[in-house]
Amino acid sequence: MADTDKTPRPKKTPRPKAQAPKGFRDYFGAEVTRRKEMLDKIAEVYYRYGFDPLETSAVETVEALGKFLPDVDRPNEGVFAWQEEDKEWLALRYDLTAPLARVAAQYRDNLPSPYRRYAMGPVWRNEKPGPGRFRQFYQCDADTVGAPSVAADAEICAMLADVLEEVGLGGQYKIRLNNRKVLNGILEGTMFESGKPPFREFGLSDFEYSRVKSEAARLIDREKILRTIDKFDKVGRDGVLKLLTIGLRDASGAFIDGVGLDEVTAERVIDFLMSLGSDNAETVAKLRALVDYSDEGMEGVDELENIASLLAAQGYDSKRIVIDPSVVRGLGYYTGPVFEAELTFETFDEKGNPRQFGSVAGGGRYDDLVKRFTGQEVPATGVSIGVDRLLAALAEKNKGAEAQNDLVVVTVMDRDRMADYQTMVAKLRKAGIRAEVYLGNPRNFGNQLKYADKRNAAFAVIQGADELARGMVTIKDLNKGKRLAANATHEEWKDQPAQDECKLDDLATEILKRLGRA
Amino acid sequence: MADTDKTPRPKKTPRPKAQAPKGFRDYFGAEVTRRKEMLDKIAEVYYRYGFDPLETSAVETVEALGKFLPDVDRPNEGVFAWQEEDKEWLALRYDLTAPLARVAAQYRDNLPSPYRRYAMGPVWRNEKPGPGRFRQFYQCDADTVGAPSVAADAEICAMLADVLEEVGLGGQYKIRLNNRKVLNGILEGTMFESGKPPFREFGLSDFEYSRVKSEAARLIDREKILRTIDKFDKVGRDGVLKLLTIGLRDASGAFIDGVGLDEVTAERVIDFLMSLGSDNAETVAKLRALVDYSDEGMEGVDELENIASLLAAQGYDSKRIVIDPSVVRGLGYYTGPVFEAELTFETFDEKGNPRQFGSVAGGGRYDDLVKRFTGQEVPATGVSIGVDRLLAALAEKNKGAEAQNDLVVVTVMDRDRMADYQTMVAKLRKAGIRAEVYLGNPRNFGNQLKYADKRNAAFAVIQGADELARGMVTIKDLNKGKRLAANATHEEWKDQPAQDECKLDDLATEILKRLGRA
Repeated sequence: MADTDKTPRPKKTPRPKAQAPKGFRDYFGAEVTRRKEMLDKIAEVYYRYGFDPLETSAVETVEALGKFLPDVDRPNEGVFAWQEEDKEWLALRYDLTAPLARVAAQYRDNLPSPYRRYAMGPVWRNEKPGPGRFRQFYQCDADTVGAPSVAADAEICAMLADVLEEVGLGGQYKIRLNNRKVLNGILEGTMFESGKPPFREFGLSDFEYSRVKSEAARLIDREKILRTIDKFDKVGRDGVLKLLTIGLRDASGAFIDGVGLDEVTAERVIDFLMSLGSDNAETVAKLRALVDYSDEGMEGVDELENIASLLAAQGYDSKRIVIDPSVVRGLGYYTGPVFEAELTFETFDEKGNPRQFGSVAGGGRYDDLVKRFTGQEVPATGVSIGVDRLLAALAEKNKGAEAQNDLVVVTVMDRDRMADYQTMVAKLRKAGIRAEVYLGNPRNFGNQLKYADKRNAAFAVIQGADELARGMVTIKDLNKGKRLAANATHEEWKDQPAQDECKLDDLATEILKRLGRA
Repeated sequence: MADTDKTPRPKKTPRPKAQAPKGFRDYFGAEVTRRKEMLDKIAEVYYRYGFDPLETSAVETVEALGKFLPDVDRPNEGVFAWQEEDKEWLALRYDLTAPLARVAAQYRDNLPSPYRRYAMGPVWRNEKPGPGRFRQFYQCDADTVGAPSVAADAEICAMLADVLEEVGLGGQYKIRLNNRKVLNGILEGTMFESGKPPFREFGLSDFEYSRVKSEAARLIDREKILRTIDKFDKVGRDGVLKLLTIGLRDASGAFIDGVGLDEVTAERVIDFLMSLGSDNAETVAKLRALVDYSDEGMEGVDELENIASLLAAQGYDSKRIVIDPSVVRGLGYYTGPVFEAELTFETFDEKGNPRQFGSVAGGGRYDDLVKRFTGQEVPATGVSIGVDRLLAALAEKNKGAEAQNDLVVVTVMDRDRMADYQTMVAKLRKAGIRAEVYLGNPRNFGNQLKYADKRNAAFAVIQGADELARGMVTIKDLNKGKRLAANATHEEWKDQPAQDECKLDDLATEILKRLGRA
């Protein structure tokens, strides 16, 4: 028992795993540069439209983000959250809209009104990661807070079109427009005109009737309607009609419950979603005929017409800005006009199958933004660009047009002459050329060329004793000579046609010429 | 007891506070733009030097960040951390170096070696916020991993100088260089040459003796030495000497413990810190004379000389790159050369007192970076720019040279003509002018002009019915006319000399001319 003398051997702490957390990834080199270039172009357009940048921090109080039940012990559903020592729950923002709402409320006395702002940066979602789905990703938003008129929505659409031009889509997109109010109007028909309780006969005033009507319409499960509509391809118009009303027995014999709409309304919903005309004027006419019984519906159609005509006046025609009632995505979230940008060129996956990019940007009007904080209604509308999706689309479109590699690696033939080599790269840089000296162990020359290859350099520059004596340098064109690499000696390399000499003093000029920049 | 029927009244959820969390702040408009412009310039220099961008995510595993004791229940000292459902602790990165270490280890088989990378972005510290101290702030780093030679340190210093030129400091800075190895060498004198145990006489081999010597030097409380040195201004050379050795009774009669160095070593430490010569050559000579008994010390001096001569060869002279042994900050962290950039122009605070900016950038060699993960030593050196401090310094330097405001606000005189006004701004934008239409309620014209003022617009453009009839627009120069604002009517404004008319078709040309851009 007198074990006290036995000092335990110190436990070796295991080495930490060098691994990003699950669902997070690192971005290297060109991945970072390409995204930055795209975001810069977008920001330039936003700025020219009078939008001001806003950068909030990544961290917000859970209270301000406001996505959680107050009595949940740990509000970590969908967000990364933690509790501070002072008991306050903090969380990483899950989008850029919630922080905007907080800012619009916090600084409401100081901000200009309307307040146009843009924001770009990472957001975080605590979701199960999947292939291509990460828990940190970029958003790039522009919103106008405090502008009730649809002129603000039209402006956002015009700006979105300009953004898509600016990043290089060259007209190969369309912006599809819809209005939540039209669907609301369509649904007002339910329960009123075909067998449901005859509210009219309860002696309600016009005002009361109209309130009850919209209240009832709000009770309808829109999400379910929208999910049903999506089955059009599978079950056909008849099938959809059954699913919107009483339900349907499918091929396997299973019974799928219906949404419970009356048949007239169900027909109308289908007509609504399919009322895309040959141009915006025709679509507007069809929609008017459909919802003429609903004030809200007619208001929605007026708004769509208004937006389209504001945009047409600026030269955005019916082909680029399309009123399309089949736009359903996100409808549950918005209170008025909604829009999304869709690509119109075909893309293919690795197997050559046509690939669906979905929408690369979307947005709309959501008028309950600041109200949570202040109690006062503040109209707001905005757009969010799917940064990764748009990047992927551009990569697809520009496939084959790889960026020119422009790096020059100056090799170290004589380690005592490092100052000369560093002076060489300094001169190249002053001429605007991207250049670096090899900083690893210079002994194995093959390693230096392998390094230059790995760096995807355009040129390697070599100056040994004999070149030095003649005031010359050797320029090795790596694009031409990639096949050798590995273990070639300096002498072997010098025999290749992909390399030749120039005067040391002419190095920068020579490289610029070969890069096509002189 | 039959209370079941009494449904409790629904509690009203209190409104959330519209407030950023303590220690976090929002950045608006020009604050965002100015930082971005500076970071873009820095990135351009980094890139030209062959550094590749790297963007890791904000979140790392606590294990990979590696700052915490494994048995602490909640590893939240200094960082924001939380535990996931799978029990893993995640945290927000507290700098950009720890993630680089993780990346260098994780991708060691794929990255070029040496690996030059730059990174910029926010980092988070869970510290008590104070005035001007925030819990999220930017860092902007460049590091070279895998280059053992001080040519890499010299390169970082040259790049730092180029960065400071590029952002606009125009030579008004110096980069002060020191080397941790020299202090190590100085401290090797302790315990060996003046009365401490005579290790020499224990019969140690030269190798053993040298190991024991550096081991003993490592045990000395360097931090305490450095803190003591800082008291030079207060207690003078004699006081410092006492504090480095046996201690000192201060004016209040309290006794302050000494560091415990022998007197010879203490003298040497003071001599070391004060051995700045009139140029680098003189400083190097002084240092050599001081540490000639220590291999590590002499190696450190050689490295300093080497770095300075590599830089001199590229034109960075003794005035811009200064070997200065009094550079102590951060010495505890580094293993070799250290450097910091200091401004050489005077700045003043609001009260006109001279203001100390401290260093705007600093860095050095830290060779134990990747070893934690892989067990193999990987040499590394790098620099971190204090983004906020450098921004503040530039603002100070450029005081008075305010950026020209360039926004045009097109007012709405007739709300039915919104399409015309939007077309007007669209044309201005096509000419490269930042322009927006007023999107608030247009009824009160004074509000529109107040809005333009709040936006700090350069011009307001007005087109009412009479201008329209004549094909004209009114341009209001807001820089000239700021004093009126408030409740002036359209007619009152038109009487002011700060406004006149031009043809609608000439609007863009006219604005460009007035902005000095045509």
